[in-house]
Amino acid sequence: MTTFEIPTEQWAQVVEKTGGPVQYKKIPVPKPGPDEVLINIKYSGVCHTDLHALNGDWPLPTKMPFVGGHEGAGVVVARGELVNDIEIGDYAGIKWLNGSCLTCSFCRQSDESLCPDALLSGYTVDGSFQQYAIGKAAHVARIPKDVSLEAVAPILCAGLTVYKALKESGARPGQQVAIVGAGGGLGSLAIQYAKAMGLHTISIDGGEEKGQLCKSLGSEDYIDFTKSKNVVQDVKAATPDGFGPHAVLLLAVSEGPFQQASEYVRSRGSIVAVGLPAGAYLKAPVFDTVVRMISIKGSYVGNRQDTAEAIDFFRRGLVSSPYKVVGLSKLQEVFDLLKAGKIAGRYVVDTSK
Amino acid sequence: MTTFEIPTEQWAQVVEKTGGPVQYKKIPVPKPGPDEVLINIKYSGVCHTDLHALNGDWPLPTKMPFVGGHEGAGVVVARGELVNDIEIGDYAGIKWLNGSCLTCSFCRQSDESLCPDALLSGYTVDGSFQQYAIGKAAHVARIPKDVSLEAVAPILCAGLTVYKALKESGARPGQQVAIVGAGGGLGSLAIQYAKAMGLHTISIDGGEEKGQLCKSLGSEDYIDFTKSKNVVQDVKAATPDGFGPHAVLLLAVSEGPFQQASEYVRSRGSIVAVGLPAGAYLKAPVFDTVVRMISIKGSYVGNRQDTAEAIDFFRRGLVSSPYKVVGLSKLQEVFDLLKAGKIAGRYVVDTSK
Amino acid sequence: MTTFEIPTEQWAQVVEKTGGPVQYKKIPVPKPGPDEVLINIKYSGVCHTDLHALNGDWPLPTKMPFVGGHEGAGVVVARGELVNDIEIGDYAGIKWLNGSCLTCSFCRQSDESLCPDALLSGYTVDGSFQQYAIGKAAHVARIPKDVSLEAVAPILCAGLTVYKALKESGARPGQQVAIVGAGGGLGSLAIQYAKAMGLHTISIDGGEEKGQLCKSLGSEDYIDFTKSKNVVQDVKAATPDGFGPHAVLLLAVSEGPFQQASEYVRSRGSIVAVGLPAGAYLKAPVFDTVVRMISIKGSYVGNRQDTAEAIDFFRRGLVSSPYKVVGLSKLQEVFDLLKAGKIAGRYVVDTSK
Amino acid sequence: MTTFEIPTEQWAQVVEKTGGPVQYKKIPVPKPGPDEVLINIKYSGVCHTDLHALNGDWPLPTKMPFVGGHEGAGVVVARGELVNDIEIGDYAGIKWLNGSCLTCSFCRQSDESLCPDALLSGYTVDGSFQQYAIGKAAHVARIPKDVSLEAVAPILCAGLTVYKALKESGARPGQQVAIVGAGGGLGSLAIQYAKAMGLHTISIDGGEEKGQLCKSLGSEDYIDFTKSKNVVQDVKAATPDGFGPHAVLLLAVSEGPFQQASEYVRSRGSIVAVGLPAGAYLKAPVFDTVVRMISIKGSYVGNRQDTAEAIDFFRRGLVSSPYKVVGLSKLQEVFDLLKAGKIAGRYVVDTSK
Repeated sequence: MTTFEIPTEQWAQVVEKTGGPVQYKKIPVPKPGPDEVLINIKYSGVCHTDLHALNGDWPLPTKMPFVGGHEGAGVVVARGELVNDIEIGDYAGIKWLNGSCLTCSFCRQSDESLCPDALLSGYTVDGSFQQYAIGKAAHVARIPKDVSLEAVAPILCAGLTVYKALKESGARPGQQVAIVGAGGGLGSLAIQYAKAMGLHTISIDGGEEKGQLCKSLGSEDYIDFTKSKNVVQDVKAATPDGFGPHAVLLLAVSEGPFQQASEYVRSRGSIVAVGLPAGAYLKAPVFDTVVRMISIKGSYVGNRQDTAEAIDFFRRGLVSSPYKVVGLSKLQEVFDLLKAGKIAGRYVVDTSK
Repeated sequence: MTTFEIPTEQWAQVVEKTGGPVQYKKIPVPKPGPDEVLINIKYSGVCHTDLHALNGDWPLPTKMPFVGGHEGAGVVVARGELVNDIEIGDYAGIKWLNGSCLTCSFCRQSDESLCPDALLSGYTVDGSFQQYAIGKAAHVARIPKDVSLEAVAPILCAGLTVYKALKESGARPGQQVAIVGAGGGLGSLAIQYAKAMGLHTISIDGGEEKGQLCKSLGSEDYIDFTKSKNVVQDVKAATPDGFGPHAVLLLAVSEGPFQQASEYVRSRGSIVAVGLPAGAYLKAPVFDTVVRMISIKGSYVGNRQDTAEAIDFFRRGLVSSPYKVVGLSKLQEVFDLLKAGKIAGRYVVDTSK
Repeated sequence: MTTFEIPTEQWAQVVEKTGGPVQYKKIPVPKPGPDEVLINIKYSGVCHTDLHALNGDWPLPTKMPFVGGHEGAGVVVARGELVNDIEIGDYAGIKWLNGSCLTCSFCRQSDESLCPDALLSGYTVDGSFQQYAIGKAAHVARIPKDVSLEAVAPILCAGLTVYKALKESGARPGQQVAIVGAGGGLGSLAIQYAKAMGLHTISIDGGEEKGQLCKSLGSEDYIDFTKSKNVVQDVKAATPDGFGPHAVLLLAVSEGPFQQASEYVRSRGSIVAVGLPAGAYLKAPVFDTVVRMISIKGSYVGNRQDTAEAIDFFRRGLVSSPYKVVGLSKLQEVFDLLKAGKIAGRYVVDTSK
Repeated sequence: MTTFEIPTEQWAQVVEKTGGPVQYKKIPVPKPGPDEVLINIKYSGVCHTDLHALNGDWPLPTKMPFVGGHEGAGVVVARGELVNDIEIGDYAGIKWLNGSCLTCSFCRQSDESLCPDALLSGYTVDGSFQQYAIGKAAHVARIPKDVSLEAVAPILCAGLTVYKALKESGARPGQQVAIVGAGGGLGSLAIQYAKAMGLHTISIDGGEEKGQLCKSLGSEDYIDFTKSKNVVQDVKAATPDGFGPHAVLLLAVSEGPFQQASEYVRSRGSIVAVGLPAGAYLKAPVFDTVVRMISIKGSYVGNRQDTAEAIDFFRRGLVSSPYKVVGLSKLQEVFDLLKAGKIAGRYVVDTSK
């Protein structure tokens, strides 16, 4: 068995007060408990959620101080005494769900993300913006050795989230799914997962550039809401029988697109909400929802099986996400760009710099 | 084979202008087409929908003039040349869905109530407030001979609707379902169907009398919203693990109860909206809906299979609905009581009077 | 509306006694009933079932004399008075299920192929080996105008059957399906449908030529049972985690392959039997079936919705079937080849010759 | 927090060689690992599987020597450092599945009984025929304090197994389930669970006494195979439409009843095999299985969620199992009776005697 020398100190980006900025500093390397592994994080994706955590946007409090990050990919360097299904030297990933009780009714039914005692990486426990991170062995993502650690990082949250949402939509191979916000980071992954799942996508976003991106990723149709005179009508017209798509993925939930989705989705179809804008509401007319038997669903992150599946689609080369690598030391600059809405694709930080 | 003498004229209650009143008069007896049957209606339930139709409350226009009614139970007295799976003399029922194309993608998938060409009894085609009504043979409810025609009438719409909603809720035997409006006509049927399906019910309504009714029908818990200091907390406390019910049936959708339901429903649970108040909206916070993975669904009327099943539960004596019989000639008086909110249970009209 | 001149006589291939041969002769053109259409058949695929019908192989008797064929593609030239959702001039197809009652519990639940009163084309009613064939309007396949009538013919039975079996298998996008008999007519369609549905296929058949065909159609793995030393081990090894495929399609059910399938299928997986060899039995050890929770299922033909979906995959160019066209007058020669096992791919007869 | 004095030695029944007899002797009390609990077993049911283990009947080897038993109910007296969701003093149960990896694809999907590394109580790890038994904390059954420990013991395997099989059958409330072997220990629990789930049961067994038992437990119909002239016909006749039951539970799989079940089960129905007779085979005709789309499924033990649900039905008083209590020291006598087929109902051993 491979062994690794583990330092006592490491570089990390630490949030010491709500609103930041993050502090790039040396902190101790943690030790894994009996059911945990220590992962030498090589790369970590930066997600919009990290910014929400930094800013304290959500009703759930973070640990304080804390190390953010929940798209960390690296190498297992130590493991607790109970861990025997992952080897030292294996690739593994820290994802949003760091751990859960594995015993409550949600965990027992493979809905561990709903566990009341869930540990959230980079939120209620330290995450992947450090060189050595702890994960519960049962929860760390298993990453095959033939996969690039920097490229797989965004799959651990962004990829997993859209893959789960597509599963939750109930859409079957051959059916149509409208993707609202198709040209963004989540959207471009959603198009690819949908295609790999045999689904036909109707991309909805604004601008020609995004349209070209969507079509290049395999989306059959693109509706430019900045140009369409009637989005509802155009979306329906993009389905062979004119009855509208079987499902809608709302990757950026806000009231306007939500109301539209409830008009163009096929009767018996589902509208899946994914994004988490602070303070937003879903709103739909009762009459239509009832007589057309529409389902409106929230989809959170995937479970451990979804994670394995999402990574497998990636491993087979069926999905990829454009990303840019910078040093972990530059994290605050990435946050500044993110805050300014200036990021297309994903940033990945290299913890060695 | 039995044969029946069919008169050329019959008594009916006709709506000749929006808002009514209904006119009790003689009109011709219709003749069934090749795929239709003629039913000698003996009894018909009076539903709130009949009042909506009379008043033109909904976005969908009625035929005009029209004969209302869609809970009609009677005897088949004539059939078209293509009809060979129902006999003259059989019991049959006219329900809300009078006919559908049987060929569109909705009909092909047993969602005939979503058929764009659906015929609606007492709305787009003449219904059961007359002595002889037409129904598409494939759609008329098959009623076993050992069933009381006056007692089964309310099952054809009210019973079917709540049974379908329970099926749509996805709740499994042994799980908990909260029923909002449990003490009303739909609610008291919902409690009984739920019990027969192995579900445990938490009834929510106002007042002690309704509480006694709910408990007498087999509901395990009753929350009186006129007395509860915290409905959300009380509903959750009524579930063994405190996580809330697996499903909620909203039999009278309005914004307040809806918002509450999204708070007390279990994570991964479903909220099923049934009623059709004019102009109402569903509204739920995005954050909770997403991180708790809640489903919000509209449930309309059941399909033909649901109808057979709903009647079978009734036939086995597992559900019953209190009702009062008056002559068809008194229909306007029933509407007046309904408008005034003065009806507990169901009115059934006897077409012979 | 287009109208067509309909002759009173037509060419047909008639079976006048069990065992044949078929008689090529002139017979009257039938007239559609109120709920039927008359289709001018242009092309008809020849299926192994036609040979079983001719030979009286199955426990169910045929009509006698009868016109075989159930993969007929053509043009609607007349319709009954009740038919209004298909136009004269539309493309339509005669498939195995010619009609069903649309009212029994099976029909009500979209399992019309299980209807006890089902009409079977080319078996209990005359089929597509004639120039003008009758179909129940609700059941004839709707074929889009941009589709080749000769190419689509084999989809109406062979394509539909394997597509249905894949749906019944319960395999989800990203999972593995083993296809036993992958290099045959059904198999090569199954590989393509599976791929379009996001499934990964392990093809099992004999010989190098078949292996090349399977790989060219997109199958990831090929196991040559004439060369493999251990088929069970090889099939399992072809799955990433070594646990075996999630589903197995048995396109030619016989005891040997069936027993093997129950050994290599993943725990919780399903084995779907499709073919209908006379007198064959499924056999599986109770212990393994129970402790590994294996499902063994029979899959018959698809329903009307499956038909529409199977044709839609074809229309999008995702599946195709190699075929050879000969005149209807040469049908006996096709049967002789079929009997001799000398056909690779499908024969399609042109009714004009 | 309560604390318990834990002795260093305890009474146990030990199997020291295949075929037995069991040795009643003192052995050390084991200590729980970090993720384990130690349960002071008060009562343990005796299951036919214990006899199979003793006799080495199955293809899977037991640990040797070993302590049998997998229906143990008792009190948690110690727990490992990682265990925080079960308290000292809580009631808990040792069931067949003592532990599993919680990480493999089966565990991740709530099919932990299919885990390749599953630990089996009284088979691959020591079980409940001792006063102090170890269980993985995530797997021990949670037993509410208001439940009788001796009465709940048989629910932990027999109850769970039939409840799981009913869930696997796919039968919905209102549908019919035939239970083969309804008058035995598993059967009488199956009738009660089925009733509590809203299912209607057709009991099949031999003799009048068993018939009376089945009816007294709530079964609507009883077919006595020792008297019936045609079991297939009689079972079908017991369903309202004559099409046969939606599901069949085969509690004692053997070829005769299996063949019959495939004849009387409704088209699209499922046959669920539960028992594990050594060397038995399932066998069904391909033609019927395919054209009637029958599913044949193996059902093993339930998962942890099923366990919680099965116990909850018991807690509500909806199911109960007749049993007889004897001292643990008399276990060999119970085995002798079991071997001789002389036990009706269940034996429960009291570990204090």
